[in-house]
Amino acid sequence: MDFVARVYVVPKPAILDPQGKAVETSLHSLGYEEVGDVRLGKYIEVKLSGDGAAGVEARVEEMCRRLLANEVIEDYRFDVETA
Amino acid sequence: MDFVARVYVVPKPAILDPQGKAVETSLHSLGYEEVGDVRLGKYIEVKLSGDGAAGVEARVEEMCRRLLANEVIEDYRFDVETA
Repeated sequence: MDFVARVYVVPKPAILDPQGKAVETSLHSLGYEEVGDVRLGKYIEVKLSGDGAAGVEARVEEMCRRLLANEVIEDYRFDVETA
Repeated sequence: MDFVARVYVVPKPAILDPQGKAVETSLHSLGYEEVGDVRLGKYIEVKLSGDGAAGVEARVEEMCRRLLANEVIEDYRFDVETA
């Protein structure tokens, strides 16, 4: 069975996010005064195969911890869906 | 009223994604043979204020077109939620 995992990785709230700050400043310069905090993270779409959603979720969780996110400075979450 | 917009930006399917390819190769090296295509994009969380969801959505759509995404090479989607 084919699945798609969508992984979202963002800098932890206590971590400075200069990229997000740059986007925030640019949005203000463009006239979007209503914008407050901006955080910039990664969005990763992984196509993968597996026998069932539970097994695939466990594998994706492992991928996040081992490669996709740096847990010292980043938070991650993901969802898995059949493709 | 306070809202959070979550914007997802990914390279268009026809566009080469060397970062995604690198992640794919790394996942294979780590033993995740079940992984197929990987696309790596941006995830942007924007806190902003506004009178209603419809108005905020129109503003965020404009921000995407003007700054957050490059429509020549990237696709984007977003959702808006009250914070």
